[in-house]
Amino acid sequence: MIEAIYFDNACTTYPKPEEVAQAVHAYITQVGSNVNRSSYGRAYGAEEMVYDARERLCRFFGGGDCRNVVFTKNVTESLNILLKGFLKPGDHVITTSMEHNAVMRPLTQLSRQGVAFSRAWCREDGSLPPGELEKCLRPNTRALVMTHASNVCGTILPVEEAGAFCRAHGLRFFVDAAQTGGTVPIHMQEMHIDALAFTGHKGLLGPQGIGGFILGEDMPMELEPLLSGGTGSVSHKEEMPDFMPDRFEAGTLNLPGIAGLCAGLDWLEKTGIHRIARHELDLTEQFLAGLNGLKARGLGIEILGKTGREGRTGVVSIRTPGHGLAQTAARLDEAYGIMTRVGLHCAPYAHRTLGTFPEGTIRFSFGWWNRAEQVEAAVEALGRILAEESDGF
Amino acid sequence: MIEAIYFDNACTTYPKPEEVAQAVHAYITQVGSNVNRSSYGRAYGAEEMVYDARERLCRFFGGGDCRNVVFTKNVTESLNILLKGFLKPGDHVITTSMEHNAVMRPLTQLSRQGVAFSRAWCREDGSLPPGELEKCLRPNTRALVMTHASNVCGTILPVEEAGAFCRAHGLRFFVDAAQTGGTVPIHMQEMHIDALAFTGHKGLLGPQGIGGFILGEDMPMELEPLLSGGTGSVSHKEEMPDFMPDRFEAGTLNLPGIAGLCAGLDWLEKTGIHRIARHELDLTEQFLAGLNGLKARGLGIEILGKTGREGRTGVVSIRTPGHGLAQTAARLDEAYGIMTRVGLHCAPYAHRTLGTFPEGTIRFSFGWWNRAEQVEAAVEALGRILAEESDGF
Repeated sequence: MIEAIYFDNACTTYPKPEEVAQAVHAYITQVGSNVNRSSYGRAYGAEEMVYDARERLCRFFGGGDCRNVVFTKNVTESLNILLKGFLKPGDHVITTSMEHNAVMRPLTQLSRQGVAFSRAWCREDGSLPPGELEKCLRPNTRALVMTHASNVCGTILPVEEAGAFCRAHGLRFFVDAAQTGGTVPIHMQEMHIDALAFTGHKGLLGPQGIGGFILGEDMPMELEPLLSGGTGSVSHKEEMPDFMPDRFEAGTLNLPGIAGLCAGLDWLEKTGIHRIARHELDLTEQFLAGLNGLKARGLGIEILGKTGREGRTGVVSIRTPGHGLAQTAARLDEAYGIMTRVGLHCAPYAHRTLGTFPEGTIRFSFGWWNRAEQVEAAVEALGRILAEESDGF
Repeated sequence: MIEAIYFDNACTTYPKPEEVAQAVHAYITQVGSNVNRSSYGRAYGAEEMVYDARERLCRFFGGGDCRNVVFTKNVTESLNILLKGFLKPGDHVITTSMEHNAVMRPLTQLSRQGVAFSRAWCREDGSLPPGELEKCLRPNTRALVMTHASNVCGTILPVEEAGAFCRAHGLRFFVDAAQTGGTVPIHMQEMHIDALAFTGHKGLLGPQGIGGFILGEDMPMELEPLLSGGTGSVSHKEEMPDFMPDRFEAGTLNLPGIAGLCAGLDWLEKTGIHRIARHELDLTEQFLAGLNGLKARGLGIEILGKTGREGRTGVVSIRTPGHGLAQTAARLDEAYGIMTRVGLHCAPYAHRTLGTFPEGTIRFSFGWWNRAEQVEAAVEALGRILAEESDGF
């Protein structure tokens, strides 16, 4: 039995800190209650936990008011609520060519309802050239929605500059932090971010099933709630409340998930996101060096995105020209126990930008629990697989 | 320290079977993977678990095709997806006066976009008089959306008859099974239900954060997806897939929640929903008898809804005329450790129907782990509280 090597942390981090599963278990077995809905003491305990989670997330992401932290099931739901709640027929919105389908599929739906969008085109390494956003401006442009980092190749987009651009042009700025929350510092207020969509189960180290978004202080009434229903507040009315966070939180929250996310945040604060990022980038740098070594041996490997550790997250995409990607990924798993992800990673235009559409790439994404020996093993495994095949096996 | 008595099972069941928290814990610690997105063995294990959950839910609710079982975070999200995905400007929809805000708030939003709705008025005990639905019919009526049982007083609505009515008039039939899934038998095909919205954390005994809906076989393309994003399928396209369940499942699923729900379903199948229902109704009958005893002693108690055990779930609402409801509920909690819920329970028109708007009621809702002694204790506690106060204390 070979040791399993998990290099799919951009999909979901694994393992989680032990405390995460413990906190979820403890919530289910010992607390149980819903919040906002009941009048007994135990329900108040659950409310405090949820309030605490909002406060931590608000602080963590540099938001202004913790009541503007809204919980959803995932970042996709968050982005749908933001985009479909804000954009109206006749509006124009700017996005980039590196977006995930969590942004592009809602925009595509909206385009059939009279919302127009333009893509700022990124370079072949995934970076955004200065001046590209300006080119997309129209008189009816109301917002920019942008990923903080590519889920395909890890390239970080210039959120600070984009925030300044939005401020200068009176646009709202929506950021998809799925790939960066927990590893790349984000400060909503300093970066002029009006709405930040996050997920709980990647860099924040919580369980799957919890995500959310944070709104700037003047944003809540700019959005029509996409989902409505019981909130345990102003229950005499059949309209959604106009106060936060109730305006966007209909129905029972994923309370065990929030408890798990809190435990993830605890662990993250204790460990330090700079330390985590440094470790992941150390592995990334080692992996890139190893891949370049294979290339030097004449093996067919193409590395997408940034060539060094600067301006990126711990996500590396490669192609193996002349060798089937799916077969290579399957061999990595079956023969070497190395778990990667192959294909388009739900981001077709990112691959058009990188020149890897429609085949896609094999993606390796590193996390805190990965070790240098595992990276070494992956380089060696890739070397063998590609050498075997190029020998005609 | 008094023993806590949890009578808020209509809000969320508590405790859950031990296996539920264990399954969630095991998923987080031992599996971890996402589904549909990765190429390694462990991800296939997760996919099998999710497929198994769809199959069980489909069988449990008498659906036709397990691919039409869609997971959401809660029944509110399910109802939003169904109502907002199906109804278009110019449409008319029938509902009842007993609905939760999970139905009424989406309908109210839709009414501002040109969708009209009519409420079939229920009797003062929450039941639906024959002929009320017919009165609401209009030439542009496309659907009926109805709760299976009132979350305020437990009265069961005639879903079978309503299904026949819909079939006869060419309407789609949407059922909110939040209060009945796991205690009252439901068979979508036999009852002509086109879309069933359920939640995982009430009668199905799963954790909070997981719910879903099941569509009839010809329904999927009748609904525009309310939420869109990455599905790990047809990733070269920026449109949602047109196949199930991907069409309605964008983003990462609450996989630990699904694992917990599976454990809940296991337990439920092993225990038998008829046995659970009988137990809950035994407690309900005992409680009603106790309350009638207090009334006979001249204490001010008013019981809403059905007077007996027939045609209801284990949910009882009362008023205490002359005594503050919130104070009475708080006394029950603080002095006797009895957890109830007070107010409008997110269903304002149900209270208008019952004649309890805008003050609301105190709601007692029984579950499998409640015992006859606890019901006895509640009757005694209520008797003392009301006697004290009516003595002028």
